[in-house]
Amino acid sequence: MYMPKSRKSIAIDMDHVIADIEYQMIDWYHKKHGVLVEREALKGLPEGAAFPEREKVRQLLYEPGFFREARVIPGAQEAVVKLWNDFDIYIVSAAMEFPLSLHEKYEWLKEHFPFIGWKNIIFCGDKSVVDTDFMVDDHLKNLNYCKGRGIMYTASHNMAIDYDVRVNDWSEALQYLYSNH
Amino acid sequence: MYMPKSRKSIAIDMDHVIADIEYQMIDWYHKKHGVLVEREALKGLPEGAAFPEREKVRQLLYEPGFFREARVIPGAQEAVVKLWNDFDIYIVSAAMEFPLSLHEKYEWLKEHFPFIGWKNIIFCGDKSVVDTDFMVDDHLKNLNYCKGRGIMYTASHNMAIDYDVRVNDWSEALQYLYSNH
Repeated sequence: MYMPKSRKSIAIDMDHVIADIEYQMIDWYHKKHGVLVEREALKGLPEGAAFPEREKVRQLLYEPGFFREARVIPGAQEAVVKLWNDFDIYIVSAAMEFPLSLHEKYEWLKEHFPFIGWKNIIFCGDKSVVDTDFMVDDHLKNLNYCKGRGIMYTASHNMAIDYDVRVNDWSEALQYLYSNH
Repeated sequence: MYMPKSRKSIAIDMDHVIADIEYQMIDWYHKKHGVLVEREALKGLPEGAAFPEREKVRQLLYEPGFFREARVIPGAQEAVVKLWNDFDIYIVSAAMEFPLSLHEKYEWLKEHFPFIGWKNIIFCGDKSVVDTDFMVDDHLKNLNYCKGRGIMYTASHNMAIDYDVRVNDWSEALQYLYSNH
């Protein structure tokens, strides 16, 4: 028995959408390997490709604290607080690839988005079984399997990718969501 | 762009469906509080109600090792191996209520169901956004919001509950799934 809901639902990704993983990569690479890569250099390149050693960027993702200490993307908190009143919000993160990040991501959400309770958090590998009306994500691999309306959130790594609905920041995301719900 | 899949999908719950949490409760309650409750006494009662102090049962769920050391439900491994060939299988656990269990549940799956990769694991709070063709679960609260065909897996706590499709063990589950896919 499927009970339809009255409010529209949004799946919101974490990395690069509400958590500033780009800054985290630059900062940790700098601290660990002594090379400072400018944010500008990342634009239009696949994730990690702008760094001298791409494998070392990937290794950072397995480091304790990497996800826990990430900054919040500017405007994300205010936007999600606002959306929370009008939509069913689910934070959907493909956290399963990095099992040690599971608890860190949970703690991060508790700190920065304390109003989002455990019932509205989903950690998965493959987002294709998540069915929401909207999905805000930075990866085509997730958006392409989304059953609802995908919204590409701009990150340096997806700038060269063509997608029909794109938002460049949370202010544009709010505008799109409130115009189309 | 939603790309439909050719194989049918099944969401399989962990606790009481592939992980023997009932035995774990009895065993840990016995070890910690010195009272051995017979499995028979649990039948038809809500979870924890058969134990002298229900709150102490709930506390067990927060103990390190509780989920990690659970036994596998008899027949579950063989059944899921078989289903894996013919369906898209997702392990969907409402693990978010117990954040410390996230990593334990991941490790438990890696030990007992090593063929299930991280892409097919979903830890969530609310299963209502998970869209699969079938959902095998022991809780009405999950089955009632399932968009596909819910299948109630019998556990002592749900024996008194009326639900249209019920399986009493993994052999019955296989029979139902292969007859209806």
